[in-house]
Amino acid sequence: MSIIKTMSTGESTSITTSLAKIDTPFLLIDKAKFDTNVAFLRAKLAPHNVILRPHLKTIKSIAGAKHILEGFDSPATVSTVKEAEVFADAGYTDLIYAVGISPQKLSRIQVLLNKGINISILLDSVAQAKSVSAFCQTHNIKIPTLLEIDCDGHRGGIQPDDTRLVEIARILHQGGAELRGVLTHAGESYDCITKEALVAAAEGERHAAVIAATQLIESGFSCPVVSVGSTPTAHFTENLDGVTEVRAGVYTFFDLVMSGIGVCKPSDIALSVVTTVIGHNEEKNWLFIDAGWMSLSQDRGTQSQRQDCGYGLVCDSEGNIIPGLQVIGANQEHGIIVAIGNDIDGANDSRKLPDIAVGTQLRILPNHACATAAMHAGYYVADTEQVELDYWARIQGW
Amino acid sequence: MSIIKTMSTGESTSITTSLAKIDTPFLLIDKAKFDTNVAFLRAKLAPHNVILRPHLKTIKSIAGAKHILEGFDSPATVSTVKEAEVFADAGYTDLIYAVGISPQKLSRIQVLLNKGINISILLDSVAQAKSVSAFCQTHNIKIPTLLEIDCDGHRGGIQPDDTRLVEIARILHQGGAELRGVLTHAGESYDCITKEALVAAAEGERHAAVIAATQLIESGFSCPVVSVGSTPTAHFTENLDGVTEVRAGVYTFFDLVMSGIGVCKPSDIALSVVTTVIGHNEEKNWLFIDAGWMSLSQDRGTQSQRQDCGYGLVCDSEGNIIPGLQVIGANQEHGIIVAIGNDIDGANDSRKLPDIAVGTQLRILPNHACATAAMHAGYYVADTEQVELDYWARIQGW
Repeated sequence: MSIIKTMSTGESTSITTSLAKIDTPFLLIDKAKFDTNVAFLRAKLAPHNVILRPHLKTIKSIAGAKHILEGFDSPATVSTVKEAEVFADAGYTDLIYAVGISPQKLSRIQVLLNKGINISILLDSVAQAKSVSAFCQTHNIKIPTLLEIDCDGHRGGIQPDDTRLVEIARILHQGGAELRGVLTHAGESYDCITKEALVAAAEGERHAAVIAATQLIESGFSCPVVSVGSTPTAHFTENLDGVTEVRAGVYTFFDLVMSGIGVCKPSDIALSVVTTVIGHNEEKNWLFIDAGWMSLSQDRGTQSQRQDCGYGLVCDSEGNIIPGLQVIGANQEHGIIVAIGNDIDGANDSRKLPDIAVGTQLRILPNHACATAAMHAGYYVADTEQVELDYWARIQGW
Repeated sequence: MSIIKTMSTGESTSITTSLAKIDTPFLLIDKAKFDTNVAFLRAKLAPHNVILRPHLKTIKSIAGAKHILEGFDSPATVSTVKEAEVFADAGYTDLIYAVGISPQKLSRIQVLLNKGINISILLDSVAQAKSVSAFCQTHNIKIPTLLEIDCDGHRGGIQPDDTRLVEIARILHQGGAELRGVLTHAGESYDCITKEALVAAAEGERHAAVIAATQLIESGFSCPVVSVGSTPTAHFTENLDGVTEVRAGVYTFFDLVMSGIGVCKPSDIALSVVTTVIGHNEEKNWLFIDAGWMSLSQDRGTQSQRQDCGYGLVCDSEGNIIPGLQVIGANQEHGIIVAIGNDIDGANDSRKLPDIAVGTQLRILPNHACATAAMHAGYYVADTEQVELDYWARIQGW
């Protein structure tokens, strides 16, 4: 599943030449930017007394995880049971499956626990707690369980002061499950546009988790895990008192949504889709590329931001942003690039496209790295320092 | 790559029981509906003197293509060179690669031609024609080439009366390429909402192709292929005079975009994502499922239609639509179902959700079958007549 190609020379031009030989479209990681992003969050959180538990739903790669996690016992988060199984088989032992559990998935969790994997599940309802309890009793197993807390109304979870938390804790305790703690995610932080709002979202996330944990502790339960996190809040938190761990995923790559809310700069984005120009309609001022939604994804996460980036911003073959261009349309296997100011109908040609020949390679920066990466079986990884081209296969399916 | 499970009994309940054992989310084909859809278009076109050339970008499966194409010499359309290579290896010999060619892909086309595959490429510019001509001269090969015609301004192509068609034909002829004909696609037909508009779009598509072909023939070139097609126009065409072949792809599955424009009924849709209920927030009137955009796709193709179906409509475990429900939100691995009338904030609870327990299997009908299928490695195929459960692997990558 893995291709390693060692480059013959150390120049960055050699890497560009080599990338030019790969059939487009393909997914590319700029390894230097990736490493910088990974190190930045670790350094940011170092002064706080917390564990960093990266969310591997973004990278979904064993080869890639080695560059994010420090060791096989490093904490990690996953979004599917399949990810948990693959990372466990690769040797990783400390996992949270951070999507609400369904009864049908418990037998696969049991298999992982019986292999010695320290995996926690997540739930937010009495019905789920009853099914987990019943499973634990029937199979004589203690499943570590986290309660999902709703800190901002964005998706699942229980309000931190809702007494159902205690009711669920009692059901789990009676059934022999292990109440491991509480978990929350500030999904609304993706809509913030000022530093103050991001700091407030981080504090709201922390506060909700701590209030929920306090309620459980005051009711006689232990709550060893107080887990918070999202890439925006992790980068803007000023206070993590009472929190034991921080989760984040997209910080390893960053993307245009993250730069749109000020968490990074566009030049920090480590992931792109490499594509080839296949046509140029001079009447419409459209450039066609061989990257459509099949390789870019249909994510339009910047649509509601101050700068709508269409289906992505355009870089030259070395990753330098070409100002004023964006992918404004995406069919299955081709995309349309325009100079901003031109609309999709080509009516407004206030800006002409630069002269880019058919056959030229370009790189497209993604709106949402998780979604764009999900369209591909793996990543090519270019590192100008180590002078090698790597391939990291992605985990697919459920 | 293929799993065949033979059912023990002939009842449809047995099939439901079997599907219930598959880990969700997964992609399901209702084989009876699929077969009906495939047969319908073939019958519709039978009175016309045209070839049906199905677009395999939707199914992307060798196992599935066997149920669409009549034989290995049946004409087919593909959207990637990878598809062409895989279908050629499987024995299919008559292919059009219907995305504008880039120079880098010509060597892979050459390999296919040298294997005896009758594959045509597509282009719409002088620059592409020059690179194809140069390649043909250098490699002493005749690459069959179609000229893309713009019939409605929707994407690529040359206007049917543009004299550049003749200029390109000359360049190809001088370089030793083979001018095979013209091809057009009425992308605007996806925005039609009346039968009259669909009939007009079909006629516009036909007319553009025939005008372009006539221009080439009058300039002394042969034009054996006059290729038109989209699922909407193929189903509403009344006149195919001058056309030699019709392409269509999504007709095999249909989807909510197609039912929204009146090409099919929602009950004709043969593709769904099977999912499990993982939670129910009674305050918000939200039902959580384990299908997010990772399995549903982010396609919002019904957003601009009269009925916006969110991220999909909801069926019970046997495929019957549950009126009034839709997937209104999709995170990476979970979706949110509401009763229509409830918005994403849960503020308007004018309609309550029916009582659907955690652990229940549901099926989600897709907005866009091509996009939803693209999120999966393959299809489970249930056929109530043949009483077996099949698995059809999908072609991935480029």
